[in-house]
Amino acid sequence: MSAPVTINLADKFAAFSDRWNPRIVGTYNGNELRVAKLQGDFTWHSHADTDELFFVVEGNLGIEFRDGVRRIGAGEMLVVPKGTEHRPFAEDEALVFLIDREGEPNTGINPSDLTRASLETL
Amino acid sequence: MSAPVTINLADKFAAFSDRWNPRIVGTYNGNELRVAKLQGDFTWHSHADTDELFFVVEGNLGIEFRDGVRRIGAGEMLVVPKGTEHRPFAEDEALVFLIDREGEPNTGINPSDLTRASLETL
Repeated sequence: MSAPVTINLADKFAAFSDRWNPRIVGTYNGNELRVAKLQGDFTWHSHADTDELFFVVEGNLGIEFRDGVRRIGAGEMLVVPKGTEHRPFAEDEALVFLIDREGEPNTGINPSDLTRASLETL
Repeated sequence: MSAPVTINLADKFAAFSDRWNPRIVGTYNGNELRVAKLQGDFTWHSHADTDELFFVVEGNLGIEFRDGVRRIGAGEMLVVPKGTEHRPFAEDEALVFLIDREGEPNTGINPSDLTRASLETL
């Protein structure tokens, strides 16, 4: 057990600038708490064995599903159920808090040029 | 699988006013996404089989541990590891997003007059 520490999201976002490259900021029940800066178009993918939570801290995020687009603004969240194909995108930079199962690739079962094999811990 | 929906936290907080009575707003990998309004002193407790995530959306939350107090402000979070005794408190009302294992009592293994046996889903 590690001692509980307060995680300040603004501090974490200030520590990096590249996009579509999540950082790990903590763990919860075998899941990774991640932060990412998203802008532009991500690639279609799904996560076979884990849900994925998106919580928008700043900006606006879109997620395209096969049945249409959902929009997520600051103070809003959305859970992508495991096995569900989706494609995040953002016209302007969005600061996003995510939760994924530990070790889950950011592109799930669909590797692309945006896959980040190993994530940095902040 | 349920269709992914955007969860607006402000809307959820506007739907109730009582304190120390979490509402369920979604699920993620067998965990419940909850929102709660916290003010005053909670009771000492621990969760035997689940971590507990506190994310402060508005206001300031304190959590007392056996080794001291941690403070969590808006935009900050803290994960209480399973088995760790803790006691949340707030001088003024704090709006908090929490994650617990599905069905976990809000007072864990230590029932008190603040135990809420069954949580409403918003």
